[in-house]
Amino acid sequence: MNSRDVGMGPTSSSTSPQAIPDVQSSVDNRHIAIQSVGIRSVKYPVLIELKGQKPMPSVAEFEMTVYLPPEQKGTHMSRFIALLEEMQGHALTIASFRAMLRDMLERLDAPSGRVQMKLPYFISKIAPVSGVSSLMDYEITLDGHAKKGSEEIWMTVVVPVTSLCPCSKKISEYGAHNQRSHVTANVRVDNDLDIGLLISSIEQQASCELFGLLKRPDEKYVTERAYDNPKFVEDLVRDVAIVLNKLPEVGAYTVEAENFESIHNHSAYAKIEKL
Amino acid sequence: MNSRDVGMGPTSSSTSPQAIPDVQSSVDNRHIAIQSVGIRSVKYPVLIELKGQKPMPSVAEFEMTVYLPPEQKGTHMSRFIALLEEMQGHALTIASFRAMLRDMLERLDAPSGRVQMKLPYFISKIAPVSGVSSLMDYEITLDGHAKKGSEEIWMTVVVPVTSLCPCSKKISEYGAHNQRSHVTANVRVDNDLDIGLLISSIEQQASCELFGLLKRPDEKYVTERAYDNPKFVEDLVRDVAIVLNKLPEVGAYTVEAENFESIHNHSAYAKIEKL
Amino acid sequence: MNSRDVGMGPTSSSTSPQAIPDVQSSVDNRHIAIQSVGIRSVKYPVLIELKGQKPMPSVAEFEMTVYLPPEQKGTHMSRFIALLEEMQGHALTIASFRAMLRDMLERLDAPSGRVQMKLPYFISKIAPVSGVSSLMDYEITLDGHAKKGSEEIWMTVVVPVTSLCPCSKKISEYGAHNQRSHVTANVRVDNDLDIGLLISSIEQQASCELFGLLKRPDEKYVTERAYDNPKFVEDLVRDVAIVLNKLPEVGAYTVEAENFESIHNHSAYAKIEKL
Amino acid sequence: MNSRDVGMGPTSSSTSPQAIPDVQSSVDNRHIAIQSVGIRSVKYPVLIELKGQKPMPSVAEFEMTVYLPPEQKGTHMSRFIALLEEMQGHALTIASFRAMLRDMLERLDAPSGRVQMKLPYFISKIAPVSGVSSLMDYEITLDGHAKKGSEEIWMTVVVPVTSLCPCSKKISEYGAHNQRSHVTANVRVDNDLDIGLLISSIEQQASCELFGLLKRPDEKYVTERAYDNPKFVEDLVRDVAIVLNKLPEVGAYTVEAENFESIHNHSAYAKIEKL
Repeated sequence: MNSRDVGMGPTSSSTSPQAIPDVQSSVDNRHIAIQSVGIRSVKYPVLIELKGQKPMPSVAEFEMTVYLPPEQKGTHMSRFIALLEEMQGHALTIASFRAMLRDMLERLDAPSGRVQMKLPYFISKIAPVSGVSSLMDYEITLDGHAKKGSEEIWMTVVVPVTSLCPCSKKISEYGAHNQRSHVTANVRVDNDLDIGLLISSIEQQASCELFGLLKRPDEKYVTERAYDNPKFVEDLVRDVAIVLNKLPEVGAYTVEAENFESIHNHSAYAKIEKL
Repeated sequence: MNSRDVGMGPTSSSTSPQAIPDVQSSVDNRHIAIQSVGIRSVKYPVLIELKGQKPMPSVAEFEMTVYLPPEQKGTHMSRFIALLEEMQGHALTIASFRAMLRDMLERLDAPSGRVQMKLPYFISKIAPVSGVSSLMDYEITLDGHAKKGSEEIWMTVVVPVTSLCPCSKKISEYGAHNQRSHVTANVRVDNDLDIGLLISSIEQQASCELFGLLKRPDEKYVTERAYDNPKFVEDLVRDVAIVLNKLPEVGAYTVEAENFESIHNHSAYAKIEKL
Repeated sequence: MNSRDVGMGPTSSSTSPQAIPDVQSSVDNRHIAIQSVGIRSVKYPVLIELKGQKPMPSVAEFEMTVYLPPEQKGTHMSRFIALLEEMQGHALTIASFRAMLRDMLERLDAPSGRVQMKLPYFISKIAPVSGVSSLMDYEITLDGHAKKGSEEIWMTVVVPVTSLCPCSKKISEYGAHNQRSHVTANVRVDNDLDIGLLISSIEQQASCELFGLLKRPDEKYVTERAYDNPKFVEDLVRDVAIVLNKLPEVGAYTVEAENFESIHNHSAYAKIEKL
Repeated sequence: MNSRDVGMGPTSSSTSPQAIPDVQSSVDNRHIAIQSVGIRSVKYPVLIELKGQKPMPSVAEFEMTVYLPPEQKGTHMSRFIALLEEMQGHALTIASFRAMLRDMLERLDAPSGRVQMKLPYFISKIAPVSGVSSLMDYEITLDGHAKKGSEEIWMTVVVPVTSLCPCSKKISEYGAHNQRSHVTANVRVDNDLDIGLLISSIEQQASCELFGLLKRPDEKYVTERAYDNPKFVEDLVRDVAIVLNKLPEVGAYTVEAENFESIHNHSAYAKIEKL
């Protein structure tokens, strides 16, 4: 991330910034407010520090928007990037994410706004029998809604797991179809949240959790554990809902599960909303 | 789409269907309703017939879900596919989409449900000067929410257009940056809707509309037209909102615009909701 | 696909096409040939007719390119679209695809060129016990390389199947992890090829084939069949290679298999090339 | 990336690893070698250090494969992950990537193999007039092919730029359509390569380079610069080829350009191969 000379030489464009008209700031006569305007699909490196885990470098994709009142022609897009630029080198926590939201409203002179950032996240896991460790990747999204004076933070985590079909197990002489599933929990974070605890709480509701690295005794273990814990897609969302109901840090939530069925070319899907 | 013998020979599995336990129908004791359960990422050919256009074959991706009451363990996933199978060969209109929603609730014995289907759609367009014709592709989504006795239908269309930056035009001695943009209108269809009219209404709000095939005189025309009609992403959503407000077939709506900026590696984005 | 008035009114741009300079046809002095130049990500409806199947409407994504000699500044992009436009309403067979390649070389005045088209394709399948029928979707790509006087056609088909892990079965007291897998066969089509036969030949090498619609007796059947036919990703590609070696219509090929592992968050992958 | 107790408690599966059969190592009688077998779509954090830049944390997606001889039934998938695990905390350079390839062959006891890793990469750039700095993201892929005793390393970088159409400029009274384009250079790295130099060399061939953050005087500058430097997709690949020919660190290469046309809903595309 060294800076680099852009190699364009001195510019012939000697107009002073002051003399350049500011079209965005002109008055708009259509009398239509815009609920959200800003930037999307911006990638920036981040150093994320979630409760219970060390700071971790990752790369986030941002969407940042604010409310634009009816009388204003346009927002100032470059200020969003300036904010990302200034965050470089600072650890991003739930608290600093709240501060970032407040900062955005101030820079854009906006009454409300939203920042969504999606990033790959890693947790080191220990294989159940051999004890070998490896990283598992999860997709995490922080979604902050800000109004003057308050912020509401939602966190989404996509947890890949194994699901094994109870019907297939019950009706078959031997075997049972199973597959990778995604459990997606989207939770309102009233207080800071132990991300490792949230993820492991979800994983324990699956037929079995996943690991990057498994030795043969581990493979035997996860195969048998999945067979011992058959779960429909409906069971996954219900059992995760029960766990989320017990976590004091979680306010409202939705939980979804998608089974990438091994016997079909489509998914089974379920969703519970508690708002 | 001929049927094909699966070539597995006679099955050794002689159990009669009656004797096979129905796990999904058993009673659930967790007392948690599931708002949506069903299938996702199912591809099926469709023959779609929208107002003002001839029936057109396409390929749709479906998500179909129903409400599952607390006391029922699972839904019957195969009934969704059976419904798709029976629709083969019938033209899909807004009216038959409503009928499909009602049919789904009945088959699944459900009080509410939803069908989303996304498909590529084509409209033949005439180049503005040469008069040559070519197809333009649009992504259309039908989204139907059904409760016993009523259905609400939403239609989403993604309309690719050109946007040319008013600020860039104003401040530069010559030229102006422009780019492809997506205008996405998500409208509640209170009555049937002329899709060609909706799309052309949206396209006329852009700096310029797109065409598959342009001759040189057409290229001159669209270049100059875009330069004559500079629009910010904010202008796009406001001007499309004004047009949607005038269409009597459109109830509530959201309109989004995303400019895949030619001077940045990210998008400018805006959204107006009228609910 | 009705034509639609573009609603732009009479153009003020009255320049005649003859008077507009043709920049692409000017001479280039860099002395660098371009192996491939053309269009990409073009969607067009097609009516595809493959051996052993009825004509089927679908939507294809095209890439069409030609060789550009060193002395020519640019190709004529609009001629590719004109060719697609003229194909509308004609069934696309392997023979007509060859004709399309020759037509492209002629229109673009090029010594060589390539057309790739990818599309969803459907085959109706019969469930193994209940006999209910449903469609399965496959992704098919036709890839034609043309030189003056000859064309070489390759066909790729992605066949989704079930794979069940032999190691997991062997080492576990009960159960075995299984998952959806993609077998991708990319074959040189020396003569026309029965696509139904190619797909079913591949499916029979898997632990089990997939179906859109399965009743409970079918689910019992496919569960037990997969358990009776464990296959590593290595077994999949080897067994498909053996089958492809026996098909007289198939020349060179590559076969790949990707298992979307149910016990990991990554895939197992294998490839055999016979060129 | 703290390790985390998996919370499964002591396993009831007390079988010792030694007693568990090793199916992969058994003998295969089909007499078919597999050119590539391994893992795909594995995400792992990396610390990448390219010539001329500081070490940078990122997240890479890996594909790792080896050759499997005819007589061996399966490879040992877990060894690939073990290798990734041991790389944690070490900076990845071209030299250490070569070492990783050699290590992989040894661990898998394979005569040849390949590692591909794709990751987002960032370079800090200075806006041309205002001098404000911001990050630009690029997608980089390292692709190493190893045989016993030698490795061949290829590096791919996707460089997003602006292209402005020379034909549109020439034939229009005012304006010219322009758009974001991707220039993709895939180069054989005979010696280590200054990534900043490679990227800026490519960017200088475009109508204009991109920046994350531009003030109004910068926007004027890039608008006018693009208008002053019109380039067809053919010009982009030819001019980048000329630059690559002059870089002594670059051996063979392919260069592609894709223009996401602002006047069409498809791309213009060109490719030059020098092998």
